[in-house]
Amino acid sequence: MTASAKAQFRLRIYRDASVAIGPGKVDLLEAIAQTGSISAAARQLGMSYRRAWVLVDEMNRSLVSPAVSTAAGGVQGGGTALTPLGETLVRHYRAVEEAARTAAAADIAVLQGLLAP
Amino acid sequence: MTASAKAQFRLRIYRDASVAIGPGKVDLLEAIAQTGSISAAARQLGMSYRRAWVLVDEMNRSLVSPAVSTAAGGVQGGGTALTPLGETLVRHYRAVEEAARTAAAADIAVLQGLLAP
Repeated sequence: MTASAKAQFRLRIYRDASVAIGPGKVDLLEAIAQTGSISAAARQLGMSYRRAWVLVDEMNRSLVSPAVSTAAGGVQGGGTALTPLGETLVRHYRAVEEAARTAAAADIAVLQGLLAP
Repeated sequence: MTASAKAQFRLRIYRDASVAIGPGKVDLLEAIAQTGSISAAARQLGMSYRRAWVLVDEMNRSLVSPAVSTAAGGVQGGGTALTPLGETLVRHYRAVEEAARTAAAADIAVLQGLLAP
């Protein structure tokens, strides 16, 4: 096993052929929660505002209710934040990763041990 | 939750910046085990022989010993098969997916429940 043998889990939940919930969208939700703005979140992730907006719009449409709420008004367009559903989504997505990593730790260690030093 | 909300796990083990063990390579190993040939495995997966050969070569180099062995000789170049290490790799990779899916089932169900019908 090498020190650089990093194991990465990715969960994607598909709705028909498209990814409704996946790592990129969850990273974006977390960045929006941190920064309070779609444009600041986009900058933080190195993506265009347009791209971030499209991802948020896709998520809001594919869920039972929106994950991100934007309050109208104010010079900068008001506050942008996660809804309770958005917070639930992020929390359970990260819980999936953590549970998976813990449950699979022994097998992952075996795989890492197969790598040449 | 919709019937089409399929959850997909992907584990990738990185060695430095490249994927040493990931879903594409494991699918290829399984196809080689099934077909006994890199070219038949490539056909089954819809990839070029050249691409499959490169993936096998990358794997063989990145592991402590090769995952695929090719016996020289014979009209078609002899038999191609997984080595014991290749079999171990596939078995533990699939065990990771299964363990992860089981451990995370409750959280995944919550996420699926957030999707619009």
